[in-house]
This record gives sequence, C-alpha cells and structure tokens, in this order.
Amino acid sequence: MKILIVGGNGTIGKVVANHFKNDHEVLIAGRTSGDVTVNIAESSSITAMFEKTGKLDAIICIAGEAKWAPFQELSEEDYYIGLKSKLMGQVNLVRIGQKYLNEGGSITLTTGILADDPVIKTASASMVNGGIHSFAQAASLEIENGIRLNVVSSGMVEDAYEKYKSYFPGHNPIPMSKVINGYARSVLGKGNGEIIRIYS
Amino acid sequence: MKILIVGGNGTIGKVVANHFKNDHEVLIAGRTSGDVTVNIAESSSITAMFEKTGKLDAIICIAGEAKWAPFQELSEEDYYIGLKSKLMGQVNLVRIGQKYLNEGGSITLTTGILADDPVIKTASASMVNGGIHSFAQAASLEIENGIRLNVVSSGMVEDAYEKYKSYFPGHNPIPMSKVINGYARSVLGKGNGEIIRIYS
Repeated sequence: MKILIVGGNGTIGKVVANHFKNDHEVLIAGRTSGDVTVNIAESSSITAMFEKTGKLDAIICIAGEAKWAPFQELSEEDYYIGLKSKLMGQVNLVRIGQKYLNEGGSITLTTGILADDPVIKTASASMVNGGIHSFAQAASLEIENGIRLNVVSSGMVEDAYEKYKSYFPGHNPIPMSKVINGYARSVLGKGNGEIIRIYS
Repeated sequence: MKILIVGGNGTIGKVVANHFKNDHEVLIAGRTSGDVTVNIAESSSITAMFEKTGKLDAIICIAGEAKWAPFQELSEEDYYIGLKSKLMGQVNLVRIGQKYLNEGGSITLTTGILADDPVIKTASASMVNGGIHSFAQAASLEIENGIRLNVVSSGMVEDAYEKYKSYFPGHNPIPMSKVINGYARSVLGKGNGEIIRIYS
C-alpha cells in the first residue's frame, strides 16, 4: 500500500510511520518537514499536498491543533483555532482526500479520550474531538468508491505521559503498541465508521 | 424560577415553554419574535439579549441551525453554518450567559440523536451535535458559581415526525412528554455535565 501519514513526524505519528514502513510505502506530511508539507487548517494547502502525493491507498491524519486553556479564559477566537485546524482540517482531509484514494482505500482520523472523558482546560479540545467522532460516523454512511473512514481515539499515550500526566490525573498511559494497533485495525481491517477507542 | 428559553417558539421549544409556564416565569427568545430577540450566531446579539433579560435562574437553548445536504455536496462554507450557529452559538450562550445566572442556576443545551446515531445528509449536523456533547462535559468541570450545564439529546420528536420521518428510517418517534422531562430533569434536578439521551 501507498500510505500518507499527515503528522507523521509527531509523537504518535513517528511510531505509526515506523510500523507501516515495514511492509508499505509511507509518505510523511508535516507542517515544515517530511516528504510533503501541509497546513491542514488551509484547504488549498491540503489540495496542493495531494497533487504532489498522487493516488494513495490510505490516508492517516495524526495532526491538528486546538487551544488548551481554562474555560473562563477561552475566547470565541480561541475556539476557532481548533475548529479550523483539528476539526475542519480533518473534515477537509476527508472531503478532498477521498478523490486521491484508490478504490477501497481508507482514511483514518485521530481524536482522543477527551471526546468521551474530558479534563479541565479542554472545553475546546474536547469539543473538536467529539465533533470528529460524530462527523466520521455520519460521513462514513455516504462516502463512495468503497472508501472506509474511521477514527482512532486513544488515551494519554505512553510517549507523551511525562509531559502531559499532570493534565490527566489518574489516567493510565496507553502503550504505543496498542496505539499502533488502532491504526493497523483501521487501515488493514474492513471496518467503516468505527471509532476505535483505546482507553486502557 | 426565571427561565429564558432560546428558541421557545419552535417545535420543541413551545411545548417546553408551556410546561415550565405552569410554575415559573418564562421568557421566550426567538430570532424574530418573543419577549426578546436573538441571533445566536452573533455573540454581540447574545450579549444584547441578556442585557434585556437581566438575571436568570435557568437558560434553555433549543435553537441553532446546521446545513443538511449529501456529504458529497457539503462545501467547506456549508459546515461553517452549523459551526457558527448551533455549535458556537450554544458555546457562546454558555460563555456569556453564565454571567447572567444566579448562583446555582443552570444552562441546558440541545442536540439530538445524530450525535450518536447519524443518518445520511447529516455530516455537518451530526458533527455539531457531537461537539456540543463533549464541550458540555468538559465545560461543566470548570463552570463556576454552582452553575450546572447539561444537554438534552432526543430522537426524532413526535411533533416533527411527519415532516422528518423519511430522513430517519426505522426511528421511533419520541413522545413530547418524554422530551419535556429531559428539560425538567436538567433544570430542576441536580445533575451537571450530563448528556440526557432520550432515544426511545
């Protein structure tokens, strides 16, 4: 398979990329580095990326930002950071990317446990994750050409645990091997419209 | 209690308003009619509304729009209709409205079964509903002054069934009495951060 991993240089992205490289051709898209560059908050940048990659068998997105801040400090504009990047960025990857997938290809988006079990300072980040869960379930009913659309939602991953554990009191770190398996299930399995939750 | 119902002239809004009028002072906010008018897609309009209502004990929102269209026809701009109205409109009602609530007051938002169980043509509408579910759970962890924040998510309601049943094949209409009870539970109960699902 020819697999594009948007955010393939990130904490999760690099282990997922290394896994798929064993048996597949992997292209990495990053904001400033990689085989191709992309700013997913701009749909024109997404289109330009796919024009460079050409036809693909799988698209994985492990990218997108949202502002973390106390609820009382989040401004209306702050919410739009996440709406434009992690939410509409991933929606636009599906809208545009489907045209660059071979028949039967797949798109895998990334959210996180905040969608179901938020912590403080995540009113915006949780909202974006929950929106993607419902979007993917809905869009998967109508996506054409045998394309499958799934989401991997994991808890705080092991490789980011030291940096973020204070935000997630009592959460158990998720082994990277389990996270990798979430993406493997989406890309190599047959599921469509699945929210693959990896919370323990 | 002094209760503001945004969208209190709508299909669900009017039965909820009639219920609460039995024992409470109810103010109706509508787009073009009611005790006060508001366009929830504009935060300045929300602020102007609350300046007119003064202090409240409960805010109920049963308003907000999102575009329904086949996934392959929804443009990027189409998604922003729902993001600005039903999603950020309700987020802004919480952000701004909390300052106009008496201690221990409540805010009740409205979504729908699409968040969990979408049908075709609802990639945008489902996304918005799912986003509100996660937002409310997150914001409820941090909202101050004893204010409670819940969401009522019902299936296709009885009073809209004839109009919408073709969109919801096999869905059972939800009796209006059950829908009213969802709002009563949020406003008169003690729950916070609850997604009150009324799907059968």
